[in-house]
Amino acid sequence: MKVNGVPFRTLWLDTDGWTVCLIDQTLLPHAFVVARARTVEDIARAITTMQVRGAPLIGIAGAYGLALALRQDPGDAGLASAARLLIATRPTGANLRWAVERVQAGVVSLPPAERAARAYELAAELAEEDVAINRAIGEHGLPLFRAALARKKPGERLNVLTHCNAGWLATVDWGTALAPLFLAHDSGLPLHVWVDETRPRNQGAALTAWELASHGIPHTVIADNAGGHLMQHGQVDAVIVGTDRVTADGDVANKIGTYLKALAARDNGVPFYVALPSPTIDWTLRDGVREIPVEERSAREVTHLRGLDAEGTWREVRITPATTPSANPAFDVTPARLVTALITERGVCAASAAGLHGLFGGGAGRKQ
Amino acid sequence: MKVNGVPFRTLWLDTDGWTVCLIDQTLLPHAFVVARARTVEDIARAITTMQVRGAPLIGIAGAYGLALALRQDPGDAGLASAARLLIATRPTGANLRWAVERVQAGVVSLPPAERAARAYELAAELAEEDVAINRAIGEHGLPLFRAALARKKPGERLNVLTHCNAGWLATVDWGTALAPLFLAHDSGLPLHVWVDETRPRNQGAALTAWELASHGIPHTVIADNAGGHLMQHGQVDAVIVGTDRVTADGDVANKIGTYLKALAARDNGVPFYVALPSPTIDWTLRDGVREIPVEERSAREVTHLRGLDAEGTWREVRITPATTPSANPAFDVTPARLVTALITERGVCAASAAGLHGLFGGGAGRKQ
Repeated sequence: MKVNGVPFRTLWLDTDGWTVCLIDQTLLPHAFVVARARTVEDIARAITTMQVRGAPLIGIAGAYGLALALRQDPGDAGLASAARLLIATRPTGANLRWAVERVQAGVVSLPPAERAARAYELAAELAEEDVAINRAIGEHGLPLFRAALARKKPGERLNVLTHCNAGWLATVDWGTALAPLFLAHDSGLPLHVWVDETRPRNQGAALTAWELASHGIPHTVIADNAGGHLMQHGQVDAVIVGTDRVTADGDVANKIGTYLKALAARDNGVPFYVALPSPTIDWTLRDGVREIPVEERSAREVTHLRGLDAEGTWREVRITPATTPSANPAFDVTPARLVTALITERGVCAASAAGLHGLFGGGAGRKQ
Repeated sequence: MKVNGVPFRTLWLDTDGWTVCLIDQTLLPHAFVVARARTVEDIARAITTMQVRGAPLIGIAGAYGLALALRQDPGDAGLASAARLLIATRPTGANLRWAVERVQAGVVSLPPAERAARAYELAAELAEEDVAINRAIGEHGLPLFRAALARKKPGERLNVLTHCNAGWLATVDWGTALAPLFLAHDSGLPLHVWVDETRPRNQGAALTAWELASHGIPHTVIADNAGGHLMQHGQVDAVIVGTDRVTADGDVANKIGTYLKALAARDNGVPFYVALPSPTIDWTLRDGVREIPVEERSAREVTHLRGLDAEGTWREVRITPATTPSANPAFDVTPARLVTALITERGVCAASAAGLHGLFGGGAGRKQ
């Protein structure tokens, strides 16, 4: 996607051929800054501090993190400890573990001296695969939005609500949930997106709004509290979100608050779609509410907020009394019963074991 | 309730006997400042800027606003235009119209020279009535929370979630939704309150947290997105909220986002209680979603946030891209089917026409 007219991906190699360049997403939407990672610790920190975020992009960053680690220590112990370090940075997401383990498996049988180069190749393959997958998600999702528009009166715009950021910034390019919306807009569909600000980190207000503005898609930022009201009044035609992990039965872990929007969509007859690349599927789990670990992030994300003041200076402000405790579960799980359909790179299916089986052959079809 | 050990109400007359003193709630929780209103325009501005907020308190402020107006212009035209000005400041709430019209009806047949003094008397009666009503709400609600605690294992604390601020700051004293919780805590119940921060204005993070901290009640501030997840994991035993307007059929208008919590409570078998003084009931309406007007507030409340920086200076920061539009519906309507019970000053009833009829005689019992 383009930034000020220049095509960018979210992650690429520097001209030296090995330093990993990343868009620092903690500074968006107010500044566009490229961060450089030269060690596995740099990548781990970039994930922990959310300079990179979004389940698919974190997976690719983790893959490159392993490559960086192998430049420094290509031995078996170094490989294992780097993989552990990276996977531990984000316990909820399935893609990270999947990507890191895929690179690990691809190099472990090689002589140490060959491992780093091969890891870079594998990471690059994963990145290209991510782009292709997301483009395919967009193409499979587009007909759902064409159909939703066809149900409206002529001349009305299609109103789609999204939570958090599952746009191109969450991937290498295109995005997952936003991929069908980018394609819909590019195809001339009259589209308007309701953007949940997505407290506590405001990925919607900061990132999704920035992406949509950059691409020229009409959108409106709302408080996370507003979506139910808009649905009650017929102002939302569909909801689409990304996901960090989907169980074999179709339960969906995604940014905290997703479950509330799924409940409201069900209560108002609004379709609720989840877009995902198949590496997001965790075939080992069934009951997402009981089995998916939910990361508890820093309380400070709730009590303090960052933004630009009137002079254009970054400021952090506290919104709670000084001694007030806060809790910050970062994800929730939407039961499959609330999900209208899953949109994957292989097509659209029901959020159920049978639906996933139909597309992926019951786990055997998982991309290896 | 006490502030630094000193008993306060949220609104009182200054030593001159006519200036209206108000706690400036826009500066909480970081500063405790008393604002003074000397004209009806001061009161209207205090409501619009949310120096005073909370449906019951706004009603009392409106009543005093009419008294201030009559000091300046006690004629029929002045009375009517002041009432219109005040009612227009907050179209969603029922209490404001009710209180203003009650004072208006109480003075309109008097000679102009006697109107202001009588308006002050009527406003003071309304304020005392508010305190008595809220205390009664607390006493009627307390057994529900005792019962919820009795369903838990010995030694476990009772976890109650609340949205926005329906504490003593929203009333003259005691609060509505928090009245039973203040009584529960004072009675020795092991209580912990989950406080929704309540974007976009953060009344939970700023006001409810401040009230609970001042009173010594254990509490934790959470993003509005978190409540569903907590309910899925058995961490919420009950939800209680206030309301700005209840229809004759029991539909509940309250701060935007309330509906989402009601949906989550229903999905997880958590009781969802609404506390209200009977003037909040609008006997003229039935279908709240269709009939209650929902105020759209400034987009800036979504895009900009205020708080204290590390040096203790108030700062306002912008969290969205500079040109991003936002929408800000301030209330939503929770259908009666999602409400476990209404808690009023006359007792507890089902959220239905029959339930309200049982307590209030089908509208005839409305306090006049």
